[in-house]
Amino acid sequence: YLSSLVSEQHPADIADIFYKLGFNEADYLLKILDNEKAAEVLIELDEELRDKLIGLRTSKEIAEIVIEHIDSDDAADVIAELPEQKKEEVLTLLQDVGQASDIVDLLTYDEDSAGGLMAKELIKVNLEWDLAYALREMRKQAENLDEVYTIYVVDEKNRLKGTLSLKKMLFSSSLKAKVKDIFNEENLHFAYAQDTSEAIAQIMRKYDLVVLPVLDENMTLLGRITIDDVVDVIQEEATEDYALASGLSEAVESDDKVWEVTRARIPWLLIGLAGGILVSQVIGIYEHQLAINPVLAFFIPLIAAMGGNVGVQSSAIVVQGLASQDNPIGGLMGRLWKELKVAFINAAICSVLVLAYSLVANPNPELGYTVAVSLFAVIIIASLFGTLIPLSLNFLKIDPALATGPFITTANDILGLIIYFMIAKAIYGI
Amino acid sequence: YLSSLVSEQHPADIADIFYKLGFNEADYLLKILDNEKAAEVLIELDEELRDKLIGLRTSKEIAEIVIEHIDSDDAADVIAELPEQKKEEVLTLLQDVGQASDIVDLLTYDEDSAGGLMAKELIKVNLEWDLAYALREMRKQAENLDEVYTIYVVDEKNRLKGTLSLKKMLFSSSLKAKVKDIFNEENLHFAYAQDTSEAIAQIMRKYDLVVLPVLDENMTLLGRITIDDVVDVIQEEATEDYALASGLSEAVESDDKVWEVTRARIPWLLIGLAGGILVSQVIGIYEHQLAINPVLAFFIPLIAAMGGNVGVQSSAIVVQGLASQDNPIGGLMGRLWKELKVAFINAAICSVLVLAYSLVANPNPELGYTVAVSLFAVIIIASLFGTLIPLSLNFLKIDPALATGPFITTANDILGLIIYFMIAKAIYGI
Ligand SMILES: [Mg+2]
Ligand SMILES: [Mg+2]
Ligand SMILES: [Mg+2]
Ligand SMILES: [Mg+2]
Ligand SMILES: [Mg+2]
Ligand SMILES: [Mg+2]
Ligand SMILES: [Mg+2]
Ligand SMILES: [Mg+2]
Ligand SMILES: [Mg+2]
Ligand SMILES: [Mg+2]
Ligand SMILES: [Mg+2]
Ligand SMILES: [Mg+2]
Ligand SMILES: [Mg+2]
Repeated sequence: YLSSLVSEQHPADIADIFYKLGFNEADYLLKILDNEKAAEVLIELDEELRDKLIGLRTSKEIAEIVIEHIDSDDAADVIAELPEQKKEEVLTLLQDVGQASDIVDLLTYDEDSAGGLMAKELIKVNLEWDLAYALREMRKQAENLDEVYTIYVVDEKNRLKGTLSLKKMLFSSSLKAKVKDIFNEENLHFAYAQDTSEAIAQIMRKYDLVVLPVLDENMTLLGRITIDDVVDVIQEEATEDYALASGLSEAVESDDKVWEVTRARIPWLLIGLAGGILVSQVIGIYEHQLAINPVLAFFIPLIAAMGGNVGVQSSAIVVQGLASQDNPIGGLMGRLWKELKVAFINAAICSVLVLAYSLVANPNPELGYTVAVSLFAVIIIASLFGTLIPLSLNFLKIDPALATGPFITTANDILGLIIYFMIAKAIYGI
Repeated sequence: YLSSLVSEQHPADIADIFYKLGFNEADYLLKILDNEKAAEVLIELDEELRDKLIGLRTSKEIAEIVIEHIDSDDAADVIAELPEQKKEEVLTLLQDVGQASDIVDLLTYDEDSAGGLMAKELIKVNLEWDLAYALREMRKQAENLDEVYTIYVVDEKNRLKGTLSLKKMLFSSSLKAKVKDIFNEENLHFAYAQDTSEAIAQIMRKYDLVVLPVLDENMTLLGRITIDDVVDVIQEEATEDYALASGLSEAVESDDKVWEVTRARIPWLLIGLAGGILVSQVIGIYEHQLAINPVLAFFIPLIAAMGGNVGVQSSAIVVQGLASQDNPIGGLMGRLWKELKVAFINAAICSVLVLAYSLVANPNPELGYTVAVSLFAVIIIASLFGTLIPLSLNFLKIDPALATGPFITTANDILGLIIYFMIAKAIYGI
């Protein structure tokens, strides 16, 4: 009864129910669902819970209950997470040899590449076929597919030549026409298996595509990527970058447990703490000056905060630029020069304002000069620093988003205060 | 010649060329493209350039060159930006009365709602039709459409009842079957015209939809939303939130001009500056203590930075939670309680570490106690503050993402230092 009640729902909704259950209940519910539904629910679950539930099953169960009922892209993702030995067992246990070899092929690609996103299930017809024959072949191929969006047209060597419009197919009057006479070879978009998932997201977004064919270097059709999986990539990338910019080491969901949230938060707090201790030692060098001129302490937070803010702005602009452009480093000097111009304007505005305030509020003009000059220097240096760090990380193939958030803030705090006290020393003549 | 060279390209690629041209050249290129291509390019351009180019055209040109060649959703977006008088002129000048009334209808919806995202062009068939008749009707309706993804099934009152699968249509053997015998009424997803664009994005992402029908309260079919437009919504939302978290008042692209970048950066810098000046006055109150104990200044940046980091983390978690959940405030007390537990763990770890450091590095135990106790208090208060501010903004229907970035940082700087000096006063007995 429970199973029939739940079964009517969409797998994504059943997955939501799973999150609200304890692990044993989830395991039980999974067992009473029919195989196809259970498989669909499993691929909707997040990796953590899915891997735990699958870990309880034998290789035979995994092959028959799960893998046989899902698309090759999801099958490859599930199998990739299995321990080495189970991986091979499951692959051998699959009834359908074609499916097994498809999965083996998909397992060779990096998970963040076009190959890692693609599925093998697609509909393709040969250039030379007539429509009647093509329709018969398509009917066979369509048995493995939920919905047909695009029909690919290939030559005898399986090289992609174009697409057939479903609309044309549906409304075409003659079944004797040949595929090559009515197929569409213009505006054919495709990806290579090695392309990054970011590049895929950009192409599909730019050209408003629902599905994108994936080729090897010889233009052989390998598979296709659907927009739903790319939407997930876009959302995950955005969530991850946002988390990093906010000082979280991993994305946190609002229903995560206390220790999961803490685990995401503590790393950057400890880095901030270490940075703060370092800064305290830097200021310690100037203890004597501070005793004589305690007013110098008044502007410590301002200098630190402005350095941090400017640095985060600069690195965020670079991170976003890197995510959305094909060749954004093109003209590194041009970029730095532009950053310098922006920094100069910001620095001039902020310094003049703080100087005006300081001269009005404080009888002691040295303080105003010190703050204004060092604020100017801090804004310029923090801008350049904030630009160069993510560009360098990117050059070293490290995620540039790591540069945003507390890293830049802390580095700029330290740098800013050293500048501040050096300039104070020069201006106060101490 | 130039026009034929450019015409072969995809509108999105031609739009890229436009960005590289001067305004007059872009205007010239637009004129030599044929009408359909020109219209397609215009809707790919960003609003700023598009509105400038359209501003140069007469109402007649806008109606005939642009509006007649584009889908109703894009047409409504273009017309919405026109001055009131031109708006009416263009609508009157449209040849197709049906198109004009579709656009008038679309103009009534908020741009961030399902109604603002939907287009009127769709294929629908009546429950009672047989397939042969349905196919003939679909053929007529399909003339306005680039590609057909879903066929909607409605009753005599235009109420949505289900969908017809293209696959079934394509491979169905008998044309005498009635629509009502083969249509699909399970797992029917739809939106109401008033739903927010965030809600639309969530539904389409969760159920992996390519197109979503939009209904009014009587279940009447009004239009449909396609995934390409929703992908743009997801990307824009993410870019905007990221910009706000990084202290940019608007999203910046790497090819924006110097003054555009400055305009995005200066508001938060000025707020940070004002905050810094306020903090300097707060510290000014304790000038006397600082002169006696200049060591107190050493930990000013640490306290300020930790308050800021913790606050940004907390508010980022809320902002992400609000973006991805249906009812995330559900249990405000529960959320605060959890936040408090996390804050307590973080505060305990950080305070113990800083106390240990301070006792080892500094002969003066009062300083260690002061820093440890105030750091503890600052982390707890900054956590609660960082959670409550975005929740309050959301409650007031203000974008909670405004709370992230410099706002929380600056507020917590000030709060943190007041706590620090108050505790110093208590511990030092001054
Ligand atoms: Mg990944
Ligand atoms: Mg994969
Ligand atoms: Mg697009
Ligand atoms: Mg578009
Ligand atoms: Mg998939
Ligand atoms: Mg990333
Ligand atoms: Mg908007
Ligand atoms: Mg609209
Ligand atoms: Mg999905
Ligand atoms: Mg999915
Ligand atoms: Mg559209
Ligand atoms: Mg938003
Ligand atoms: Mg700070």
